[in-house]
Amino acid sequence: MMELRINETRLWDSLMDMGRIGATDKGGVCRLALTDLDRQARDLFISWCLDAGCNVRIDRLGNIFARRPGTDPKRAPVMTGSHLDTQPLGGKFDGIYGVLAGLEVVRTLNENGVQTLAPIDVAVWTDEEGVRYNGAMASKSFAGLCSPEAVLEQVDVEGRIFGEALNEIGYAGDQSVGGFAVDSFFEVHIEQGPILEQEGKTIGVVLGAQAQRCFQVTVTGEEGHAGTLPMTMRRDALLGAARMVDAVNAVAFRYEPAPVITVGFMQIRPNSRNTIPGQVIFTIDSRDPRDDVLTRIGEDMREACEGIASAAGLKVAYEQTSHRKTVTFDSGCVAIVRGAAMAIAAGHRDMYSAAGHDACNLSFSVPTAMVFVPCEKGISHNEAENARPKDLCAGCDVLLQAILARAGVD
Amino acid sequence: MMELRINETRLWDSLMDMGRIGATDKGGVCRLALTDLDRQARDLFISWCLDAGCNVRIDRLGNIFARRPGTDPKRAPVMTGSHLDTQPLGGKFDGIYGVLAGLEVVRTLNENGVQTLAPIDVAVWTDEEGVRYNGAMASKSFAGLCSPEAVLEQVDVEGRIFGEALNEIGYAGDQSVGGFAVDSFFEVHIEQGPILEQEGKTIGVVLGAQAQRCFQVTVTGEEGHAGTLPMTMRRDALLGAARMVDAVNAVAFRYEPAPVITVGFMQIRPNSRNTIPGQVIFTIDSRDPRDDVLTRIGEDMREACEGIASAAGLKVAYEQTSHRKTVTFDSGCVAIVRGAAMAIAAGHRDMYSAAGHDACNLSFSVPTAMVFVPCEKGISHNEAENARPKDLCAGCDVLLQAILARAGVD
Repeated sequence: MMELRINETRLWDSLMDMGRIGATDKGGVCRLALTDLDRQARDLFISWCLDAGCNVRIDRLGNIFARRPGTDPKRAPVMTGSHLDTQPLGGKFDGIYGVLAGLEVVRTLNENGVQTLAPIDVAVWTDEEGVRYNGAMASKSFAGLCSPEAVLEQVDVEGRIFGEALNEIGYAGDQSVGGFAVDSFFEVHIEQGPILEQEGKTIGVVLGAQAQRCFQVTVTGEEGHAGTLPMTMRRDALLGAARMVDAVNAVAFRYEPAPVITVGFMQIRPNSRNTIPGQVIFTIDSRDPRDDVLTRIGEDMREACEGIASAAGLKVAYEQTSHRKTVTFDSGCVAIVRGAAMAIAAGHRDMYSAAGHDACNLSFSVPTAMVFVPCEKGISHNEAENARPKDLCAGCDVLLQAILARAGVD
Repeated sequence: MMELRINETRLWDSLMDMGRIGATDKGGVCRLALTDLDRQARDLFISWCLDAGCNVRIDRLGNIFARRPGTDPKRAPVMTGSHLDTQPLGGKFDGIYGVLAGLEVVRTLNENGVQTLAPIDVAVWTDEEGVRYNGAMASKSFAGLCSPEAVLEQVDVEGRIFGEALNEIGYAGDQSVGGFAVDSFFEVHIEQGPILEQEGKTIGVVLGAQAQRCFQVTVTGEEGHAGTLPMTMRRDALLGAARMVDAVNAVAFRYEPAPVITVGFMQIRPNSRNTIPGQVIFTIDSRDPRDDVLTRIGEDMREACEGIASAAGLKVAYEQTSHRKTVTFDSGCVAIVRGAAMAIAAGHRDMYSAAGHDACNLSFSVPTAMVFVPCEKGISHNEAENARPKDLCAGCDVLLQAILARAGVD
C-alpha cells in the first residue's frame, strides 16, 4: 500500500461546514430526510464533488453517486458512503462522516495525482435514519431487497408520501435503482456505542451487525370527558399503552445477555389534557445478535401487549414493520480493513455493529465491510454526539487504504 | 312566567349549520380555539346576532357579547352563553348549544314582540376547551380571577402565543375585559355524563362544580441510540413516564368514592423510533367535589412520580398548572332554574357538574347557575357526542324562563 494520508483538517472543516445546515442551539443537527435542509445538505455535497472533478448521478430514490473515474473501463466501482440525514436531535457525525470521508479520499487522491484502475463512487443514501418512514429503505432497494415502489409509496403518520416529499426537494433522479455491478462497499462510521473509547482503541473492524425487528402497536380505547367519566367506566388507550411500554422493556431482562428493546415513538389521539385518550400508536425497536432470540422476544412482547389490552378492555393491533436478519460482512473486505488498520498502526479490535447501517443492506448484494471510530462516551442520536479529529482522520485513512487495495492503482 | 316557548327546529338547524364548520368524517367537529375555523364560527354567530337586531362588542380576549337591549337603561344585563371552540375530536353540542340557546331565546323574544327591562347579553367565551392553552382563561379573566395579560401571554408547546393567535384570526377586540355590572349568568350545556339519561330526567339543576387541579410533569432522561446503548445504561424518559401514568391512575383508587384522574396529553422528545426518548412532558387532570381530597391526591401523585424518577435515574419536575376550588352556584339563580324546570313540566334533578365550565369562573363575580340536558350515553369530547332535539329544546325553554324571571318583562 502507498504511504498516502488524508488531510485531517480538511475533513474536520468539511464536517463542521456541513453541520451548519440544520444546526441546533446545543451543537447538534436537526436535518430530517426529505426536508429542505436535506436538500441544502445534498446541494452542498454535490457542489464539493463537482469541484473535485466527480460526475454525479441520482437515482429514483434520491440516492446520489459521485464518481471519480478509473482508468480501466472494465472495472466496476469501489463504493463508499453513508447518509446526510439526521435524527430530530442528532449530531454532526452519524452518517455525515461516512459521506465526507469518501469525499476526502477523492480529494486526497486528486492532490496526489493518484489514478485508480476501478472508479470510486461516493454514495449518499436517502433517509437512513427512518424518523418518518422505515429507515435505510433506499439502500435496501439498491441492494435488491425491496422494490423502489415499496420505498416511494411509504406514508408517514401525517399522511405524507415518501415519493412526493422526494419530488418536492428536487431529488427524485432519473437513474434506475441499482442494476449496475459494484466491486465492493466500505462505510466508515462513528461507533455509536462505548466500546472503542472504553478500550482505548481507534479502529473497529466490523464483522457484521445484530438482527433487528421493529413493530408498530396500535392501542384503541374510547375517548371521553376527563371530568365526567368514572374511572371504572373508562377505556383509556394511554393508560394501556403506558403499561405496555413498561412490559415490553421488561421483556429484555428475561434474556442473558439482554437484547436492546426501545419504545422511541408514541402518538396519542386526540392528545388533549382534558380528554381520555382514545387511541395510541407506538413503535418497538428490538435488536440482538441472535436471530432466534429476537423471534422469541417478538412473541413475548406481543403476548404482554395482548394481555394488558384484554384486561383493560382495549383493542390492540401488533404488527411487525421491519425485520433485518443478523448481518455478516464479506470476510475479504473485513480482512482488508483489518490490514489497513495495521498498516497505519492504529489500535483496533474486531466487533459487531449494534446499530443498523446502509452497509448492512448493501452486504446482501455487494462484498461489504465497515470501519468504526470512537465517539465521545458512546453518545449518538443526541445533540451531544462528538468525536475527535484524530480518530476521524484514522478511520478515513483506513478507508483510503481499503479503497486503494480494492480499486488498484494505475 | 309567560307561556312562551322556543322553536325546537330552528335551534336544531342552527346547531347543525354551525356543526359544518370543522365537521369531521365521523360526524364530530374539530374546531380548535384561535384557528381559522374558530374565526369562521364566530363570524357566523355574529352575522346571526346582527340579523336578530343585537349589537355586538368584542373584548381584548376575544370574548363576544351580543346584546339585545332592555327598556330600563339602569338595569345591568342578564347574561347567557358558552363557547364555540371544540376538542380535536369533539362534538356539535359541547359549548355550542349554550351559545345558540342564548341566540334562540333572543329570536323567540323578537318574534313574540317581548321587551325585557334588563338587556340580554349572549356571550361567547374564548378558548374554553384548553387544548393548547389552559382552558376557560378568558372567562376567568372576565370574572377578575386573573389579568388579561396572563391570558394573552400564554404559550403553547409549539411556542405560539395566545395573543398573537387571537390577533391573527382578527378577534382581539377593543373592549376592556369585564369591568361592567352583570345581573346574572345562566349557561345551558349537555351534561357530558350519564346520570340524566340513566334516570330518565330532562333537566339537571346544577348546584355547582367539582374542584379541579391540573399538573404538568416533565421527565428528563438522556437520548441515546436504540441499537447501541445497553438496557442497564439507559435513562429512558418514556419508560419512566409510562410508569408514572400507571401510578398516577392508580392513586384514584385509594379514595372512596374515586376521584377522576386523567393523563390526556403527552409529548415525547425526540419521538423517533430508533432513539431512546430524552424527555417526556405529560399533563394530569384531577377532579373531585372534595377540595381536601384533591389536595391529598396531588401530593400522592407527586410522591409516586418522584419515586419512579429516582429509581430510574431520571429527573422529574412536577408543577401545578391550574387549580379551581369546588364551585357553589348562587342559590337564587339555582332556584330560578329549578322553578323554570317545574314551570315547563320537565323531569329534573339537582346535581353537581363533573366538568369545568365558563360558568364556574363567572360564579366568582356574578350570580350564576347552569342548566344541564342529557346527552347520548354520557359521551362527550368525542365525535360521537349526541343529544335529542326535544331535550335541547327543553333546556332552552328553561333558559328562556330563567332569563325572563331575572330580566323582567316591560
